[in-house]
Amino acid sequence: MSNVLIVHAHPEAKSLTAALKNLAVETLTAQGHTVDVSDLYAMGWDAVADRNDFTAPVNPDRLHYAAESKHAFASGTQTPDITVEQQKLLWADAVLLTFPMWWFGMPAILKGWVERVFAYGFAYGVGEHGGERWGDRYGEGTLRGRRAMLTVTIGGREPHYSARGVNGRLDDLLWPIQHGILFYPGMDVLPPFAIYQTDRLREEEWPAVAAAYRQRIERLFDDAPIPFRKQNAGHYNGQQVLKAGLGVGEGGTRIHLIQPGDPAESSV
Amino acid sequence: MSNVLIVHAHPEAKSLTAALKNLAVETLTAQGHTVDVSDLYAMGWDAVADRNDFTAPVNPDRLHYAAESKHAFASGTQTPDITVEQQKLLWADAVLLTFPMWWFGMPAILKGWVERVFAYGFAYGVGEHGGERWGDRYGEGTLRGRRAMLTVTIGGREPHYSARGVNGRLDDLLWPIQHGILFYPGMDVLPPFAIYQTDRLREEEWPAVAAAYRQRIERLFDDAPIPFRKQNAGHYNGQQVLKAGLGVGEGGTRIHLIQPGDPAESSV
Repeated sequence: MSNVLIVHAHPEAKSLTAALKNLAVETLTAQGHTVDVSDLYAMGWDAVADRNDFTAPVNPDRLHYAAESKHAFASGTQTPDITVEQQKLLWADAVLLTFPMWWFGMPAILKGWVERVFAYGFAYGVGEHGGERWGDRYGEGTLRGRRAMLTVTIGGREPHYSARGVNGRLDDLLWPIQHGILFYPGMDVLPPFAIYQTDRLREEEWPAVAAAYRQRIERLFDDAPIPFRKQNAGHYNGQQVLKAGLGVGEGGTRIHLIQPGDPAESSV
Repeated sequence: MSNVLIVHAHPEAKSLTAALKNLAVETLTAQGHTVDVSDLYAMGWDAVADRNDFTAPVNPDRLHYAAESKHAFASGTQTPDITVEQQKLLWADAVLLTFPMWWFGMPAILKGWVERVFAYGFAYGVGEHGGERWGDRYGEGTLRGRRAMLTVTIGGREPHYSARGVNGRLDDLLWPIQHGILFYPGMDVLPPFAIYQTDRLREEEWPAVAAAYRQRIERLFDDAPIPFRKQNAGHYNGQQVLKAGLGVGEGGTRIHLIQPGDPAESSV
């Protein structure tokens, strides 16, 4: 049995997003997993990364956030709220983020959770940097071996988020989160669970949504992750640019997905 | 002469990002423009969208953010901080957002500015919805006729953000902001001004950066915007899906850019 962290960002406990979060807790618990929830609104999470995140700053006169983050993480002088969330991430075998899509991204309170918790030395600045190496990231890093999955509630219509829809493809909109935030420190990211036109969901439609979501949650440790290419496994050159011959026929962020016929990744 | 609003999000007044913001103010003022700055960290901007944004909620027992936003905007019961920022946007002929790229997006405090200020009836929920119409957005809307431009400072290396770079192409990473936040309510978005490896910028390199930035700012009302396709100008069908024959040979978000040889957009 495994440990699952749910990071939840919705201001209303009676919302559809919260109902999905509650269903995830129930389903995982029934499977015998242990679940912890960071309910950011309920916790009154501090969304703003600033100098107050560092109890013993190196340079109180000029804030360099990454430098202070590195020092504070290494010296144990982060604020306790940050440390607690990092411990939850280390404890977890899987991490779910449950949130409404607001202006094509995660709510600010969740973005602020990432900015403050994903410290230098914890989620970035890990491994050797310089020359042909640019860190242990994208498939490597502190959170390697963990699974992650987004649960996203969307007000708009599904066609608007399709491959040629006016909003942009959902996977492109989620790229900064799924690849840039979750895969970066090493997590394996499952395809997202997304529902559309949430304002129009009728009571009688909920059982079907719940059944679909329950199935995804029950397969959290079984489903195949999105096949993002690892940075240091042979598909990128020393500039971290995709090598010629890979990603052919694809465009945009999809060139970074392993395709049938691609050479196997070397182990990292 | 014109009015320019700069929305600035960096916690350190001595930062490179702040220096660029200051340079923009100087340059625009020297040109005879009037400039206002929303310095979000200095203002102590409330980054979290929640029930406190509505002074006379329709339903105090269950927060539906969009519904309350619609009501509050229409009835003049938004909190004053939100109203002030909306007035600045209406006053402005151009809007600059100056911020560091944090985890492949804007800082949470700026995202929270968008979430709270871009109210229903102001930045979305504008125009007819239903059937073949899905609002006045993407090239139409309240902020039509205004220009917008991002100024982004980036810690990483430029090749990592190139067309085949491991982070994803910069334009793809900025898509949710440039298209989803700025073009959505009608603004014309100029190509971003981005600088890389900001931590390694040496004192003697600043004059060249400043000169390049000053030139971009001086041409704020002259440069051609990114040719995003308007939603309601004939390139999308009634499902708001790009029509066949358009965006051929491109992938990802780039299919949504007008290409040479495309049929002219109909006026909207």
